[in-house]
Amino acid sequence: MIMLTAHLKKYGMKRCPIDNSIKMIGRKFTLHILRNMILLKQKRFSQFLGSIEGISTKTLSIRLNEMEKEGLITRAVISTKPVQIEYYLTEKGEMFEPILKLLGELSLKYEAAIIFKDRKPRDFEDVFGRNVRLSSVYDY
Amino acid sequence: MIMLTAHLKKYGMKRCPIDNSIKMIGRKFTLHILRNMILLKQKRFSQFLGSIEGISTKTLSIRLNEMEKEGLITRAVISTKPVQIEYYLTEKGEMFEPILKLLGELSLKYEAAIIFKDRKPRDFEDVFGRNVRLSSVYDY
Repeated sequence: MIMLTAHLKKYGMKRCPIDNSIKMIGRKFTLHILRNMILLKQKRFSQFLGSIEGISTKTLSIRLNEMEKEGLITRAVISTKPVQIEYYLTEKGEMFEPILKLLGELSLKYEAAIIFKDRKPRDFEDVFGRNVRLSSVYDY
Repeated sequence: MIMLTAHLKKYGMKRCPIDNSIKMIGRKFTLHILRNMILLKQKRFSQFLGSIEGISTKTLSIRLNEMEKEGLITRAVISTKPVQIEYYLTEKGEMFEPILKLLGELSLKYEAAIIFKDRKPRDFEDVFGRNVRLSSVYDY
C-alpha cells in the first residue's frame, strides 16, 4: 500500500476509506441483504431467505450478525407470541441506497441483453421515471 | 427470488440489475483494482500488485482477465522492447467512480475512528472540497 499510504497521509488518514467500506460489504450476500431491506422493505429472516438466491440459513445468520456489528442494521425483538425478530437499517445502512441505484443503472445501461427481455439498454429514468426514490421502485 | 421476480416482470426485466452488478464486482479485489485505476490512474500489473494489500500474482491475473471479459477494462500491448501491457478503463468501468466516491464517503462519516488520526468524522467535501472529481483527489 506504499503509494496509497503516502497519499492518504496528506489528508490525515490512517486508512483508505474506500478499502474500509469494501471490507464492510465485501462478503457474499451482504449487498443482497441491503438490497432487500432498502428496496423490498424486508425486515425478517424468512423474507431474506426466500428471495436471495443461493443463500443458506447458516450464512444468512452469520451475515446478519456481522452487519449488526458493523452498525449497518439493528435487531429488534417484537414481543408477540411467539417472539419475532425484525431487522432495521441504521442511518449508515441507508447510505447504500444511492450505491445500489448506481449499481442498478450500470446493468440497465451496459448489460441490457441480460437484464431486459427486449435486450435494449435503458437509463434508470427511462425505466423508473425521473426523481424516483429507489425505495419506491421495488415497493410491492 | 419469488417476490423479486414478480416485481421485475412489471418492468420487462428477466434479471435484477443490482444482482447482476454485484456479481460483476463481488469477487475479492475487483473493486480495489477499479479503485487503483480510477483514483490512482494506475495502468500496470506491477502497480496493482504493489498497492493492493494481500493480493497475489495469480489472483491479480485472474481478476484482470475476468474484468476484461466483463468489459470493465481493456488490455493494451505497448510495443516497446520489452513489450509492456497496460490496462485501461472502459466507459462501463468509469461508471464506478461515483460508486467508489459514495463508498469512501460512508467511511469518512461513519468510521472516522478507523480512518482519521484525530478520529473526527467528516463529509467528503470537508476533506476534499466541493465539486472535486474523485480522480483528482488521489492524483500523485
